[in-house]
Amino acid sequence: MSTEYKPLPFHKVNITDQFWAPRIQTNAGETLYTQYRNLQETGRLPAFKLDWHEGMEPVPHIFWDSDVAKWVEGACYSINLVPDAKIEAMLDEAIDLIISAQQPDGYLNIYFTVVEPEKRWTNLRDQHELYCAGHLMEAAVAHFRATGSRKFLDAMCRYADYIASVFGVEPGKKRGYCGHPEIELALVKLYEATGEERYLKLSEYFVEEHGQQPHYFDIEAAERGEVVDTSHLPPHMLTDRYAYAQADVPVREQKSVAGHAVRAMYFYSGAADIAGINNDESLFSVLKRLLNDLTTKRMYITGGIGPSRHNEGFTTDYDLPNDTAYAETCAAIGLVMWNHRMLRFDLNSSYSDVMELALYNGTISGISLSGDRYFYENPLASDGSHHRVDWFGCSCCPPNIFRMMASVGGYAYSYTETDAIVHLYMQSECELEVGGQAVQLAQKTNYPWDGRVSLTVGLEQPAEFTIKLRKPGWCDDFSLSINGVKQNDVAVEKGYISLHRMWKDGDVIELDLPMVAKRLYANPAVSQDIGRVAITRGPVVYCLEQVDNQIPSELIQLPDQAKLVATYDPNLLGGVVAITAEAVSVSSDGWGDTLYKDQPAPTEPCTIQAVPYYAWDNREVGWMSVWLRR
Amino acid sequence: MSTEYKPLPFHKVNITDQFWAPRIQTNAGETLYTQYRNLQETGRLPAFKLDWHEGMEPVPHIFWDSDVAKWVEGACYSINLVPDAKIEAMLDEAIDLIISAQQPDGYLNIYFTVVEPEKRWTNLRDQHELYCAGHLMEAAVAHFRATGSRKFLDAMCRYADYIASVFGVEPGKKRGYCGHPEIELALVKLYEATGEERYLKLSEYFVEEHGQQPHYFDIEAAERGEVVDTSHLPPHMLTDRYAYAQADVPVREQKSVAGHAVRAMYFYSGAADIAGINNDESLFSVLKRLLNDLTTKRMYITGGIGPSRHNEGFTTDYDLPNDTAYAETCAAIGLVMWNHRMLRFDLNSSYSDVMELALYNGTISGISLSGDRYFYENPLASDGSHHRVDWFGCSCCPPNIFRMMASVGGYAYSYTETDAIVHLYMQSECELEVGGQAVQLAQKTNYPWDGRVSLTVGLEQPAEFTIKLRKPGWCDDFSLSINGVKQNDVAVEKGYISLHRMWKDGDVIELDLPMVAKRLYANPAVSQDIGRVAITRGPVVYCLEQVDNQIPSELIQLPDQAKLVATYDPNLLGGVVAITAEAVSVSSDGWGDTLYKDQPAPTEPCTIQAVPYYAWDNREVGWMSVWLRR
Repeated sequence: MSTEYKPLPFHKVNITDQFWAPRIQTNAGETLYTQYRNLQETGRLPAFKLDWHEGMEPVPHIFWDSDVAKWVEGACYSINLVPDAKIEAMLDEAIDLIISAQQPDGYLNIYFTVVEPEKRWTNLRDQHELYCAGHLMEAAVAHFRATGSRKFLDAMCRYADYIASVFGVEPGKKRGYCGHPEIELALVKLYEATGEERYLKLSEYFVEEHGQQPHYFDIEAAERGEVVDTSHLPPHMLTDRYAYAQADVPVREQKSVAGHAVRAMYFYSGAADIAGINNDESLFSVLKRLLNDLTTKRMYITGGIGPSRHNEGFTTDYDLPNDTAYAETCAAIGLVMWNHRMLRFDLNSSYSDVMELALYNGTISGISLSGDRYFYENPLASDGSHHRVDWFGCSCCPPNIFRMMASVGGYAYSYTETDAIVHLYMQSECELEVGGQAVQLAQKTNYPWDGRVSLTVGLEQPAEFTIKLRKPGWCDDFSLSINGVKQNDVAVEKGYISLHRMWKDGDVIELDLPMVAKRLYANPAVSQDIGRVAITRGPVVYCLEQVDNQIPSELIQLPDQAKLVATYDPNLLGGVVAITAEAVSVSSDGWGDTLYKDQPAPTEPCTIQAVPYYAWDNREVGWMSVWLRR
Repeated sequence: MSTEYKPLPFHKVNITDQFWAPRIQTNAGETLYTQYRNLQETGRLPAFKLDWHEGMEPVPHIFWDSDVAKWVEGACYSINLVPDAKIEAMLDEAIDLIISAQQPDGYLNIYFTVVEPEKRWTNLRDQHELYCAGHLMEAAVAHFRATGSRKFLDAMCRYADYIASVFGVEPGKKRGYCGHPEIELALVKLYEATGEERYLKLSEYFVEEHGQQPHYFDIEAAERGEVVDTSHLPPHMLTDRYAYAQADVPVREQKSVAGHAVRAMYFYSGAADIAGINNDESLFSVLKRLLNDLTTKRMYITGGIGPSRHNEGFTTDYDLPNDTAYAETCAAIGLVMWNHRMLRFDLNSSYSDVMELALYNGTISGISLSGDRYFYENPLASDGSHHRVDWFGCSCCPPNIFRMMASVGGYAYSYTETDAIVHLYMQSECELEVGGQAVQLAQKTNYPWDGRVSLTVGLEQPAEFTIKLRKPGWCDDFSLSINGVKQNDVAVEKGYISLHRMWKDGDVIELDLPMVAKRLYANPAVSQDIGRVAITRGPVVYCLEQVDNQIPSELIQLPDQAKLVATYDPNLLGGVVAITAEAVSVSSDGWGDTLYKDQPAPTEPCTIQAVPYYAWDNREVGWMSVWLRR
């Protein structure tokens, strides 16, 4: 991991495809404006005026700052892609208001300034104070990168400096850390934007301090006078309480991914940054093991994670119920973030495969095609009662998907001194710097509906370097030609096709990733999926919706030999490949008033149509199911 | 329904079989004594001393009276079967104590005498006052029938008379009724024991008053000063609140069985008594329709009813989840009670089939083979976490199964002026009076393990009458001989084989109900059972338990063509027929760290062993499953 595979920033990727480009446009329009209105109308943005007083409704909530900050971050990404004076003006006003709420000592938090000022830093376990700070820092970095203005960035540096004066191992400081990780990765962004190593150090402190003994959450609870009698709790219950906040043991001692899924993903993202930047093999290998554990035992086929509503998080290996899947949108986004950071220091398609899976399924399922309605939970089966809404009381997911969508191009390419690397296939143009030379890549494809990708190299002068192309895990075999000449025996290293040669301007690589509708089966340890099959095509996971299949989902059976027919339909769900098959359905004929009998119900033929999972609940309401009976 | 098919009382049936007789013995020993000890130790029986005072623990609960009453009832049944001086002495002491708690006006209720005396009759909806009264009356009738003593009976008549002075349609009386039906059927027993029509009339009043408008529960709530704002509730939520207590509409207007399952069964039992005794065809036909609705759309294959823990009751048609099945023991007992009452006025095997099903499965599953541990809930699948316990805080089920077990013989025979009727096959002797003549029946069989039944008729002198034998619904075909001569073209009317002839002493009927292990399938509208199969043999429903089948239950598949082999094992679970089959199990081999792949898991052969459902959780703890994957 001595090599850094530098991600090409999203604003340097000009996406021109039929999949992401329209989404990014909707994101910068409908999504941006409706969220802004929601932030205004719910009082979140105005709350930075600090004019709340006893008796006023609504009372600012402890995580309001973060909702606003994520929207600011996403809006900055939008103008970084496409300058827009109106949005810039909205941002300026919002940022000025945010900065105006900063206290003389650098502190900035709505709730603990106006509602309970005496309780500042008294309950890091539950109160999201540093979490909110982290999101403000991320927003400030985004604003600086988009506009060059340092006003927000400088304010957040002052806040970070103040935080560093309060927390740390030095005598007189609190050895605290946030119950909801986030500031760890935000401080790394602040470090990278400013070059100030102290922010990296502060992040490193937070990463390492989680779970240390004596336990800070116990210390601060005692200071609050909170008497928690845990004497009657069995050991695992004690552990669970801390694991929820990634604080049961220090990260280096963690055995498996546990607790609140979003907290876990943000924490591991920050830890991955620290491990990579510090070239800390030992920490990095812990994270590799944890991530492998997660993706091989605790991840839905959609890239959704965290099955339980109870802790918004993880339970046990292979516990992946479909109808009650929590699979928070933010958790899938966090999974993308963590994998992207691992990929920065370890070029292995195991990371980019998961990243792609979550991007095309469990993250974007969280937002409607219209860009203004959201899922917090992303179950893999529904009886028809789960629907998108336009905002949540706890509204972390909407601005999270907003900022992710605006910056999705940033997951596509990386580069080193010797390599130009393509992780994701999406029609786009970009310029990478490889060994001091500008390399332009023009990617043409109709991905994710077609696996054929053409990549044209643009160079001032011929240059010897390597182009690495991810061979997706879903693809069994591929073919590749350069300038029309089929290449045999192409090397694939850790899931990347490696093409080393003297490249010249206009060279064309044609990669064909045969995209066929196929069946996937779950490890039999996943009891909920035994006897069931899921349909996928390329990176896209499919589902059945009632609107296309009137027969109740449980009556449908997809025989193993039934042919899956994929057809692009430009008028369906904004243009998707739908998959049809001749299935069978269990017939209720002849049962009448009989509840139990000694002959099974016969089956009769039926045609089923599957649509991409991410697009469900965008039409008439009804049931949905990813895993079909075989 | 002008004919009454008089049930032969349980104490006139001398059961000599290998199935019920040992259970009745355990019931009269271990069960009787351990429950008595629990009633003493938990304070229930001593509470009749009325010595509770503020600050004393435990505080008597509103349904304590009923727990004691059901035990008294069951203990009276025990001594009615087998006289026992020690039990008689315990009963005398208990009954004297109960009677000593009666107030001068006839009222008798622990809670509303010592804890909240000012609240007598102020909350019939929730407080079980008349429910407790009903159980005390049932106990008193049982005591009178067992001993001939009128002391308890007379006390309860005073109580009933007092109740009649408080409730009714006459001016000055409250038009109330109990939120937990029970007194309706109890008053009918009191009427039949005393011949006093006024108790029948009072029962009739309660039956008819349920659900009338203006709604009594609203009136008493207003009198309590309870302001219930239901303006925001949708209509079905309003209905559900009342349906829970069988009080949404008058019984004659009920469309389907709803609400709390035990309340429903007790209510319909009382209503069936009233309809039958009054020869009220219109009410009886409502009950027939409701019962048909229940057994054809809302009953588990075990005879368990009431799938939801939420309301301890009914939900929607075909909603029969297995692992979360509530299926309270008391509800299955109530189902037996209701069917038995319907059968009294309408000889149809649809009632006795359900009665038998519940008796051999969903009721006796509620008590351990040792007779001292109980299930409140009887799920049809368990992950290994559901276990019998020796008592409950709300302990209605243990004394209920106790009294049912003691009186199980009472469900076996009926008689009219012209017919001797056998509903249940169990080795036993009894004497019925048919047309003024004593008819002895000696039934020999190894039911439920063997379907061959021999019935020897005992008569003083030859007589012409009809012997009716139930043809069980589980039996597709039967053969029958009289005195060794095979009878062809035997008439079957409403599920009863009808044998009319001049019978003479020593005539032997031999009935062969071929008992083969077979598969049952659920109506495909039961989504939880789609693709699944259950094993039954005769009236007994089978399940797989982990102790016999180490492979996780969901991995097991029972192929349609696999032969089911039934073998009697005298050493297993007190002697049962076990069923084995060559099934297959889904293999986890080769999955390693793979979570999803494009080839399904292979299957491998495995032998499974099924045991009677009623006997589960009597050995090593582990998972259990009735419905197996096909």
